[in-house]
Amino acid sequence: VTDRPLAAVVVVGSEILEDGRFDTNGPFIEKSLGLAGFRPILRLVVGDDREAIAFAVREASARASIVVVSGGLGPTFDDLSREGTADALGTTLARSPELESALRERLRRRGMTPPESVYRMADVVPGAEILANSVGAAPGLLVKGPPSIALVPGVPAEMEAMLLSEVLPRLQALHPGAPSLRRIFKIAGLYESEVEGLLSPAMPRWGDLGRTILASPGEITFILRGDPGDGERLESARADVLRILGGAIYSESDEGLECAVGRLLASSSMTLATAESCTGGMLGGMITSVPGSSSYYLGGAISYADDVKGRLLDVPAETIARHGAVSAETAAAMALGALERTGADLSLAVTGVAGPGGGSAAKPVGLVHLALGRPSGAIGRELRLTGDRGMVRLRACRAALDLLRREVFGSRREERA
Amino acid sequence: VTDRPLAAVVVVGSEILEDGRFDTNGPFIEKSLGLAGFRPILRLVVGDDREAIAFAVREASARASIVVVSGGLGPTFDDLSREGTADALGTTLARSPELESALRERLRRRGMTPPESVYRMADVVPGAEILANSVGAAPGLLVKGPPSIALVPGVPAEMEAMLLSEVLPRLQALHPGAPSLRRIFKIAGLYESEVEGLLSPAMPRWGDLGRTILASPGEITFILRGDPGDGERLESARADVLRILGGAIYSESDEGLECAVGRLLASSSMTLATAESCTGGMLGGMITSVPGSSSYYLGGAISYADDVKGRLLDVPAETIARHGAVSAETAAAMALGALERTGADLSLAVTGVAGPGGGSAAKPVGLVHLALGRPSGAIGRELRLTGDRGMVRLRACRAALDLLRREVFGSRREERA
Repeated sequence: VTDRPLAAVVVVGSEILEDGRFDTNGPFIEKSLGLAGFRPILRLVVGDDREAIAFAVREASARASIVVVSGGLGPTFDDLSREGTADALGTTLARSPELESALRERLRRRGMTPPESVYRMADVVPGAEILANSVGAAPGLLVKGPPSIALVPGVPAEMEAMLLSEVLPRLQALHPGAPSLRRIFKIAGLYESEVEGLLSPAMPRWGDLGRTILASPGEITFILRGDPGDGERLESARADVLRILGGAIYSESDEGLECAVGRLLASSSMTLATAESCTGGMLGGMITSVPGSSSYYLGGAISYADDVKGRLLDVPAETIARHGAVSAETAAAMALGALERTGADLSLAVTGVAGPGGGSAAKPVGLVHLALGRPSGAIGRELRLTGDRGMVRLRACRAALDLLRREVFGSRREERA
Repeated sequence: VTDRPLAAVVVVGSEILEDGRFDTNGPFIEKSLGLAGFRPILRLVVGDDREAIAFAVREASARASIVVVSGGLGPTFDDLSREGTADALGTTLARSPELESALRERLRRRGMTPPESVYRMADVVPGAEILANSVGAAPGLLVKGPPSIALVPGVPAEMEAMLLSEVLPRLQALHPGAPSLRRIFKIAGLYESEVEGLLSPAMPRWGDLGRTILASPGEITFILRGDPGDGERLESARADVLRILGGAIYSESDEGLECAVGRLLASSSMTLATAESCTGGMLGGMITSVPGSSSYYLGGAISYADDVKGRLLDVPAETIARHGAVSAETAAAMALGALERTGADLSLAVTGVAGPGGGSAAKPVGLVHLALGRPSGAIGRELRLTGDRGMVRLRACRAALDLLRREVFGSRREERA
C-alpha cells in the first residue's frame, strides 16, 4: 500500500528491559515519524551495552533508510550510544573542540564544575551534524547516510523538542516522502466487536485501505489509512463510517471523550458538576485534565462513604437504606444534590461496585448506576461492566461522559454526520 | 554481574508501530522473565508482516537462549507469528487434528459458526508443545530449543495468564538459572538529583551491585541488584540506603504512595477526607484506586470554582478575596471545611495553578498550596512545581499524600529504619 521511506527506532536503556518500565519514547518517535511521512517498521530495545547498541543500529540500518536512536547520550559511563553507533558504522569517535567549548561555557554559566568525563558528550561520529538540545545539555547527532541515523537524548522532554525541531525537518529534506493519509474516528458506547460487526458489511468497498480498531476501556479508536492517491476512496469510506456509526462517533481527531465533551460544554456555556462514589474523584480528575476546564466545570462531591452522600449531597438516609448506595435512586439523588449544592446547569453522578470486594448476587462487581442531573430532573443508566477495579472505574467515567454527550448534545452530532 | 540465561522478547503488532500506541506486553514479559531468573537483553517490535516476524525471531534466537513472541496468534489473515516463527526455524507448519477438534468443540459450545479459516489457530510448529489459553481461544506454542521459543497471544489478559501459568514454569525447568536478588526503595519528597547526591558517598562500598534510579513526578524508585552470592553485600548496602534516606523512603516494595499511606491509615483506624481545587478529583481518584480504601477514605469536595469552595467547604468569600484562591489561607480553610463537613479525622487540601494558563508573576504556574487538616488545626506547605499541567497535578497529589505520611506517621517510619 505504500512507498513511504522506511524508518526504524532504537531505544537504549537497561531500566526499560530490566525493571518493567514503560518506554514512551519509542511510541512518540514512531508516531511522529508516521505523521512526517515515513513508515516505522521496526523498534529495537536494548540495554546500556555498547555491543548491543551496535547490533541494533546495524540491524536497523539494514532494514530502514531512516534510523532514530533514543537514549545513551548523557555524560556517564553507561551512556554508550555514540560509541555503539560508531562501531556499527565501522568508524571511531572524534572530539569536537567547538562542542566541547560550548559545553564548558554552558556549565560555567550555571556555576557547575563537573568531572572532565562529562565532555564525552562532545565526542561525535565523524561527518555527523550536531543537533542543538534546547532543553538539556546532551547534544544530538545526525549522520547523513544513507541511511540517515539520528541520535537523540532519552529524557522525554529533550527528545521531543529535538525530534520535532531538529530531526524531522532535516529528515524530510533528505528523504522527500509523501505523507500518508489517515482518518481517525473516536467511538464511545459500543464494544469493539460491535464496531467491527457494524462496519464489516461496508469493508469490501474500501479495497486495500489500511484499517485498525483499537479498544481501550469505554473508548474505541478506528483508523483508516491510505496512500496519497487514495484521497477519494478514503473520503467515501469515511462517509460509510459516519453513516453507520453515527452518534457513537464523538470525535474525528485523536482526543479523549473528556476533551470532546469539554468543547461541547464550553461552546454551549453550560456548567457541570459531579457526584462520585465508586470512581472517588476520577471523573472530576479526568474532566479537569483538560486545560481551560474551569470555564465549564464547577466541582462537586466525592461521596465515598454513605454518610457523606447525605452530608455533602443531601441524599436522604432513607433512600440509601431502602434502595442501597448502589441504586438508580441513590444515583439520581446524588445528581440532583450536586446540582443544587453547586448551582451548575448539569451534573453527573456515579455509584457502583468497583471490586474486587463488595459484590453480591443482587449487586455484583461491575454494577454501576449513572445519573445525569438537569433542572428538569435526573436521567439514569444502569451498566454491567467487566474488567478489574481500574477498568470498571475507567469505563464508568467514560460512560458518564458519554451519557452527558448523547443526552444533552445528541442532536449536535447528527447535524455534523 | 550475572550468568542468568539471556532472554529476548518479540512484540508483534502494526498498531504499535503505526499509531503510537503503548505496548504493555513487552514490559510485562520482561519484568516477569527477570523475576523468574532470566535476563532480558533485547526487545524487537515488528508489524504484522511474516518476513519481519521471521527476521525478529531469527535475531532474537541468535542472541538469547529464551525467546518470547507476543501477538499474531489469532485467526485472522494478519496473524502471522506462527508462520514467521516456522520460517525463522526453516520448517513449515502442520495442522494439529487434536487442536482443531478442540477448537471446533469450544466454538460449537458457544454457539459460534466461524469461517473455516479460524482453524489456522490449530497450525503448529512441528514438535512444539501446545500451551493452553485459559482466557481466550488462541493456543500458545513452546518450541523447546535451544533456544526455547514461546509464542503467546497479544491480548494482555490472555498473554499474562499463559505466561505465568504455562510458559515460565516450563522455561524454568528447561533453563535452571538462579533468580537474581533485588532490593527496591520507593522515595517521596526528594528530587532524583538529591537522592543521587545523598547516596553517592556510600556507593563505592557497594562494589558492582547493579543500581538504578527511576524518577516519576513526585516519586523516585531506587533499585539495587545482585547475584545469588551477593546477599550479604546487598543487605549492607540496604542498611546504608535506609540510614541515609531515612523517612524519605515510604516503602520497600514496588507500590505507589497511595498504597503505603492507605495501609498506614487502615492500621491506625483514622479516616481521611479531601478538598481539591487544581487537582479536580485526581487525589481522591488516586486514593480510591486502592482496593479497600473505603475503610479509611470518606470522600470530600472538588471545589474547582471559587464559589463552590464556599458552598461545599465553607471557605469564607473574604479569605478568597483577600488572599486569593491559591493561598495558604484558602488551603487551610478548605482542609478544615472538609474535616467539618465529612466528620473525618484527617483531611488534605490542594489548591494551585496547574497551567498552562492562569499564572501570574506573583502566582506562577506550578505554585501549589497544600494543607493537612486535623482537629487541632491545619498545617500548610507551599510548593513550586515544574512540568506541564499533568505533571504539576500528579506531583501535587503525591506531595499531599507525603505531607500526610510525614506529619501523621513520621515516627512510624523512623521506628522501622
